[in-house]
Amino acid sequence: MFTLVPSGSVGSASGFLAGAVRAGIKSKEELDLAILYSEVICMAAGVFTTNQIKSAPVILSQKRIVKGRAQAVVVNSGCANACTGGQGLADAHEMANLAAAKLSISPEEVLVASTGVIGVPLPMDKIRAGIPKIKPTREGGHDFCRAIMTTDTRPKEMAVQVDSRGTKFTIGGVAKGIGMVHPNLATMLCFVTTDAVVTADFLPAALQKAVDCSFNMVSIDGDTSPNDCVFLLANGLAGNESIDFDNGGDFQEALNAVCIHLAKSMARDGEGATKLIEVMVEGAEDQVWARQAARTIAGSQLVKAAIYGNDPNWGRIVAALGRSGARVSEDRLVVYLNDVCVMKQGCPATFSKEEMTLSLSNSDNVLIKLCLNSGDGQATAWGCDLSEEYVRINSRYTT
Amino acid sequence: MFTLVPSGSVGSASGFLAGAVRAGIKSKEELDLAILYSEVICMAAGVFTTNQIKSAPVILSQKRIVKGRAQAVVVNSGCANACTGGQGLADAHEMANLAAAKLSISPEEVLVASTGVIGVPLPMDKIRAGIPKIKPTREGGHDFCRAIMTTDTRPKEMAVQVDSRGTKFTIGGVAKGIGMVHPNLATMLCFVTTDAVVTADFLPAALQKAVDCSFNMVSIDGDTSPNDCVFLLANGLAGNESIDFDNGGDFQEALNAVCIHLAKSMARDGEGATKLIEVMVEGAEDQVWARQAARTIAGSQLVKAAIYGNDPNWGRIVAALGRSGARVSEDRLVVYLNDVCVMKQGCPATFSKEEMTLSLSNSDNVLIKLCLNSGDGQATAWGCDLSEEYVRINSRYTT
Repeated sequence: MFTLVPSGSVGSASGFLAGAVRAGIKSKEELDLAILYSEVICMAAGVFTTNQIKSAPVILSQKRIVKGRAQAVVVNSGCANACTGGQGLADAHEMANLAAAKLSISPEEVLVASTGVIGVPLPMDKIRAGIPKIKPTREGGHDFCRAIMTTDTRPKEMAVQVDSRGTKFTIGGVAKGIGMVHPNLATMLCFVTTDAVVTADFLPAALQKAVDCSFNMVSIDGDTSPNDCVFLLANGLAGNESIDFDNGGDFQEALNAVCIHLAKSMARDGEGATKLIEVMVEGAEDQVWARQAARTIAGSQLVKAAIYGNDPNWGRIVAALGRSGARVSEDRLVVYLNDVCVMKQGCPATFSKEEMTLSLSNSDNVLIKLCLNSGDGQATAWGCDLSEEYVRINSRYTT
Repeated sequence: MFTLVPSGSVGSASGFLAGAVRAGIKSKEELDLAILYSEVICMAAGVFTTNQIKSAPVILSQKRIVKGRAQAVVVNSGCANACTGGQGLADAHEMANLAAAKLSISPEEVLVASTGVIGVPLPMDKIRAGIPKIKPTREGGHDFCRAIMTTDTRPKEMAVQVDSRGTKFTIGGVAKGIGMVHPNLATMLCFVTTDAVVTADFLPAALQKAVDCSFNMVSIDGDTSPNDCVFLLANGLAGNESIDFDNGGDFQEALNAVCIHLAKSMARDGEGATKLIEVMVEGAEDQVWARQAARTIAGSQLVKAAIYGNDPNWGRIVAALGRSGARVSEDRLVVYLNDVCVMKQGCPATFSKEEMTLSLSNSDNVLIKLCLNSGDGQATAWGCDLSEEYVRINSRYTT
């Protein structure tokens, strides 16, 4: 059982401080360098990009998080520090060292993340000048959230308070957008903090589970940027009975909720997007196929363009399902668009195209539901529509 | 050795006739119903969509082509006859029967193909009225080519004359566009004819090989519409020594050339496209990875948008490579954009961004070349850029 923390963010859990400055890495006058810090050392878990080309901060953080603990994260936007060779790795190390010096902690306890343009060296003079100016505070989570944004149009943050087995703890998170629903490249960053006491084994397992039903459902497997990462830090200050696999239900539920909220916010904030698309697949032979089907449909360029045009062109949905790899019996398939049946047992259903177009044009959130009637597998994926604005943004990103 | 046949088309090989009429299936006043016919029965091979949702004409033709022969193809545009259940299959059969009656041949020798909107019943009254009016002629290949177009902006056809081992034969083909480079849905149809004598074993093998290095390199595996098909008909009228695996080199080379030409024409004619993108991958550990890498890059939405914006944002190329599944050593990787080195051994190369932007804006054909320096695998894929116009076309296709 959990409740929303008003104006919650990554600094909402006890003992977490955050802050950001404008270091001048981004060309726009915006916050672009930030620190997240816990007053005590945390248990830490991370999920990283599956891209074979990994940015320097990912290489560094992936190595450091193996020991399962961390105390701070330093992040910049405006430069990905990817494809920057040995110098890039040295720069990521120096960035961690600078943050450690500022916070008077060991550099080994500092994780690093970057987002921005690939193939450009990190402007270390700006990093060196900026880090000492960051003043982490209890309210600084919102600034931290803004500092990691690139093409995001709105901040993505949330915190919940969980009441579990007589004690209370908080889980808070911030994320930056994936830019588009199929993140070919745009970086996804997410930082989640909690004051709960969690076992070393359960923490990474819970994070992976939460990521699988949230961020991985707005993105195609493997379709990740060199910089993607999700961090979960748990500092244990809530003093609850240690959470493990046998009593972790409430924690998992709340963590899933935070991650799903952030993931949906990303999808809704896709570059140029005007609508959130939610794709529910039910009755697949198993969950793997349900996930594959939901993701393929949510990511289909033609489905996205049709939804943008308020066009109930369900043939595109069925065709995306057909190529998703999920086993499908056409004659059992039922498809709903905003709760109206558009295809039934492999044949067109009767519906008013005019009413459906009107319903789509009035929907900020479009629901596509497919019943495969072949088993118990179910999954939900999120995407956004594809507009001319998306192309404008992405044809003019570095120039 | 082969030479281009001036104004060549699917009717260029001896004994092939083609024709088309305006049956009123498309809302525009355009040819939309066509017949391709050989004066004698042909050896026939086909490659079909891998989508699990198959249109009625694909189900019918796939079954008929198993026996390896055919004498005619009847095609319509404007309606896909997909997701139309048992009635759709009955309609596809009737369409073949009507063509057979018109041509006085057995219905079993007629293949059927359709392209257009999914989930709409075939307007059989228009098909019944239209087929008897088609008059196949030796010059009718160009009309046939126009009749299969949907959002294509220009016809795609080519014929070559092959001089092999003392005899001459002709291979001609027409195709309709895949609409976009990653054909999530838009249908690809291709019809190739030849008067060569070819063995029953070699014909399907040669077609598969040609499709693999052409149409499959503008499309992601499995990312096909319910209607995709490629047919190859060989009527043997050239009277050459029978072509088989041991003497098929010239035939294969010419067939590949025809298919690659049609495939590149499709990519160049992608919806809203302003540029053809050619992606050459060299030095991969093996050919499978080279193909995967080339296709992933050619299909990357962000690469396509960058090329549209004349933006030398090579980080997107490298990131697409990194998620392609191909094994990559970042420190061996060299990337060229229009023959200018932009990344070398994992680090940015020095180049003038202004000159590169100018070079891109002057290029109708943009060449992306990657040297992986890890082996002998090489492959080429084709795509097109992604423009606002693409979104406009695809958000307003059925409405």
